[in-house]
Parts: sequence; C-alpha cells; structure tokens
Amino acid sequence: MQVIESVLEMQRWADQQRGHGRRIGFVPTMGYLHRGHLSLVEIARSRADSVVVSIFVNPLQFGANEDFQRYPRDLEGDRCKLESVAVDALFLPRSDEFYPPGFQTQVEVERVTRGLCGVSRPTHFRGVTTVVAKLFLAVKPHVAVFGLKDFQQLVTIRRMVRDLNFDVEIVPAPIVREPDGLAMSSRNAYLSPEERHAARGIFEALTRAHAAFAAGERAAQRLRDVAADHLSAAPLTRIDYVEVVDAETLEPVQTVERPAVVAVAAFVGSTRLIDNCLLDPAGVAQPATQQPIAVSHFEQCVTEGNG
Amino acid sequence: MQVIESVLEMQRWADQQRGHGRRIGFVPTMGYLHRGHLSLVEIARSRADSVVVSIFVNPLQFGANEDFQRYPRDLEGDRCKLESVAVDALFLPRSDEFYPPGFQTQVEVERVTRGLCGVSRPTHFRGVTTVVAKLFLAVKPHVAVFGLKDFQQLVTIRRMVRDLNFDVEIVPAPIVREPDGLAMSSRNAYLSPEERHAARGIFEALTRAHAAFAAGERAAQRLRDVAADHLSAAPLTRIDYVEVVDAETLEPVQTVERPAVVAVAAFVGSTRLIDNCLLDPAGVAQPATQQPIAVSHFEQCVTEGNG
Repeated sequence: MQVIESVLEMQRWADQQRGHGRRIGFVPTMGYLHRGHLSLVEIARSRADSVVVSIFVNPLQFGANEDFQRYPRDLEGDRCKLESVAVDALFLPRSDEFYPPGFQTQVEVERVTRGLCGVSRPTHFRGVTTVVAKLFLAVKPHVAVFGLKDFQQLVTIRRMVRDLNFDVEIVPAPIVREPDGLAMSSRNAYLSPEERHAARGIFEALTRAHAAFAAGERAAQRLRDVAADHLSAAPLTRIDYVEVVDAETLEPVQTVERPAVVAVAAFVGSTRLIDNCLLDPAGVAQPATQQPIAVSHFEQCVTEGNG
Repeated sequence: MQVIESVLEMQRWADQQRGHGRRIGFVPTMGYLHRGHLSLVEIARSRADSVVVSIFVNPLQFGANEDFQRYPRDLEGDRCKLESVAVDALFLPRSDEFYPPGFQTQVEVERVTRGLCGVSRPTHFRGVTTVVAKLFLAVKPHVAVFGLKDFQQLVTIRRMVRDLNFDVEIVPAPIVREPDGLAMSSRNAYLSPEERHAARGIFEALTRAHAAFAAGERAAQRLRDVAADHLSAAPLTRIDYVEVVDAETLEPVQTVERPAVVAVAAFVGSTRLIDNCLLDPAGVAQPATQQPIAVSHFEQCVTEGNG
C-alpha cells in the first residue's frame, strides 16, 4: 500500500493509474476505521481497479464547539486495517497543505444543506463539500463511495457532483450495523456502556416508523411521531430532530408518495448520533441489521478498543 | 474543428486526448471574439497539443441590472475565427445543461473578490468561479489562459485553483490594445464614435501613473491621484474606481514596495470598461500598446462590425 501525503504526488499517482487504463475507486474517511468503512472499500474495489482511501480529520466541517480536537484517531490501526484489505493507496493530506495561509475558497451547496443537520451545524456541509471537492481534484477518482448513514451528506455530494460537472460516479453504500442495530460510527467510541445500551433506541425508533409505513401509513407526521415517541422514551437520549423528508430534495413531505427518508439525530449522553431509514412506496423492504462482509484479518488490527 | 455541446461528450473528448498523451490547452470566453482572444489561443497552443475554446455567456456572472441580454453575440463569426486559427475543439455549453432546475452549488473565493469590481458587482466573481470550475471539470485542461485585462478575475481564478487543488496551470496573457491604447474588449462594441474616442483616456491615465512610478514615485495615493485626475478630466467618462492594490492579495497598499497594480473601472457613456497596469519595483518596463500577433485569415471573419 502506497502512502501519499502530498497533493502533487497524489495527482501524479492518479495520472499514472489513468494512463494505464486503470479505474480509480475512492473512499474518503476521517479515519478510526470500522467495518462500515471496510464495506465502502469492498464496494469501491468491486467497481474499480485501484482503490484509494483518504484519512483526513477535516477541521472545516467541525463547528467551533464540536469535537474536532477529541475526534478519535488511530493512524497505526487504520494503516493495518487498510493493508489487510489490500487498499492500493492511502492518501493522508497534511492540514497545512490543504488549508495554507491565504486559503479562502468555499464550495457551497445551498438548499439541501439547510435543514436536518444543517440547522444545528450551519457550516458543516460547506466544510464537507469544500474538502470533498479538494479530495476529488487530488485523487481523480472514477467512482467514489459514500455511506448511506450520512444521508444528507450523500445527497449534498451528489448535488455538488452534478452541479459542478465532476466526472465521478457517486455510489451509495448500505448502512452497516451492530448486531442490535446501532449504525456503525467512529463516534460510537464516545459512548459509555450505559449510553451504548441506550443508543439502540435510535434504530428501534426507525424500525417502528418503517413498520408503520410497511403497514400502509403514508402520513409523514404520523410516521415521524412513531419514531419520535419511541426515542423520547429512551433513557439518556435527547432528540435533535426526527423528520420525514423527500429522498432527493430533503424537503419535508406531507404524504409519502415517492421515496422519502425518516432521518434522526439524537444526543445519547453528550454524543450526537445520526441514522435514517428509506421509506420507498415502490417497495417496502425491511431495514435489516446488515451484517458486515467477511472481515478476514481486519479484526487483528484493533489497537485502541476500536471495532 | 470539433464542435461539442454536451458536458459528457466534452469529458470523453478530453479523456481521449489525455489517453493519447496530448496536453490540453483551454481558453474560456464569452464569445464575440477579438484579437485579444486570439492571443490567448496562440499562448494556449504554445503550451499544449490540443486547444479547446469555450463560448458561453454565463448568466451567473451578470448582476440583475447588467448587460446579460444585450451582451454581443456572433457565433458564426466566432466559429470562422476559431477555424482560421486551427482550434481543435469549440465547446458550446447549453445553458439548460449547465444550470438545470435544482442547480444550487456555488464556488466562492472570499477575500480577493471583495474590493475593486466586487464592490459594484457583488455576485460577479462567484458566478465566474462557479462557471470556471464547471468548465475545468468538463474540459479537463492541463493549462488554461486568462487575459491580464481582467486582473481581479485572474487573481481569483488562481486562488481558486490553488485552494481547491485544480490540476490546471493558469497562464496570464498580456493585454492586447488598440493602436491608441484602449484594451481590447467585446464591450468596446457598445461605444459610439465619441465614446470610443473618449475611452482612450483610460489607458492615458494608466500611462501617466506608470510614468510617475517609473520616475520614482512610490506613494500609492499619489500614483492613484495621477490616474484619477487625468480620468476625471476625460469627456463622457465617470470613474467607478481607481485603486493601487497589491498584485497578489488585491489589498490596498500605502507604498509600492512589492508588485502592485493600478486598476481602473470607468463608465464611458453607459459602458463600463476596466483596465490596469502593473507597477513592479523590480523592473519598470513601459506599458506598451502591444500589437496583436499576426492574424492571418482571422480578419476575414468579421461579420458584424466586430474586430
């Protein structure tokens, strides 16, 4: 696995791959990798010849009072995991090269970033789109994989790609869950044992809303309330939002007549977690607790209690 | 000359050129081509194997009360001119593909766009950077050429390229002038004969400021006043701004100790024209009325009084 730290070196590596007719698959991450990330790598591999993973805890997407400083980091464990799944190149941008003195350019997607997480994190998505644009221009991927857990992020990136003519196919990846349904997230590492137990309430709430939908309920407010009522009763949990929104525009809907998502953000203790579930009138598949793909040597890399 | 109207076709053409190891040179324009544009094409050719010119009158960079509707257009004349200088591909984006319903992404360079033209045209540069990002992602150039007449635009594009990791070399092109010094611009076509005569005052003003600089004057305010006083006395002319700013940050300077520009925007009649002149303490070359490169068959294409 090649480890690349400079933008220029990354671009020359990408040019070389492209020159040899190899398709580049890309998985951008903030590190502290778990099996959710692994599934993104597997999808990238299935659609490309060379896989690049980036690890960059992007200061631009954290608000002033958020967890940038304490965001979990484990570069040695991450390298081991990525070696174990035969990633071709690990891109580790240096913060001083990505945001040098005089940096002053932002990429902003306007409407789809206003609601949901955009309410409590008003500069978050601008930070995400700016860094993803920079990463795409450094890595030059043919295809990039983003997890469905961060649903608003996925919609935002897709909109940016379409609006700016990025020649990159965006592939959504199913949410990978723990056995009790909790969506995998690096931030789960913040949870105490009691909080970890309480956090299962998020998936339970989504499952109940989905069951009501599968039983024929189409009124968004009632679907929302099914989830919110369950979550309100969960211990240690405080709702940030529960909303039913159009799956493409992210605008609130009254009645679910085309694909929508029920989206949740909740604090469990002081940890903010998000999750969501598709409500598709065309087919009401159950939101399974998807088991991760066979993980081979991946588990041997766990170095700091991170799974 | 290949004429390309869709983004996808443009990208595949670019991929093909790159696949054959050909370097792509790019000249983005709004059409109504003059010899200034031709000089950009010649510079692109000298640095690349294939030259792409785009013509797109970009609605996003015009303010509500500006001249988008009446901006001069002459596609047939432009095609003829580009054929005559053997451009390889003409990219003609369709407005409905570039800005489809739901379009909502902006690229914004913050500080260097605030002053100078940014004061009277507050959304102009955001429109420029957004469309240039889109054009770069469609054309995939190795090198792109921008004229020094639009100095703030050049600085802004350079900043965007550096900040977002665009793998494109930005080459500045000297200002091409009419025999009396007026900088070539498609907007010169708006001028009545009297206004055209008065418009020479802009270059005269810059020449006087430069002469004072060459004679040793380094106080920005005095250099500015030399230009402004001359321009104030010119007939039919109203100053929008005259400023001496740092050539890289575009911040106002007190004393010219490193490269600066004296930048002018003025209305001649109702036509707003811009021009500028470098003040470089390291070498005080005269601002020549640069004659255009040999124009071969180019002149035969003049179809609507456009030279």
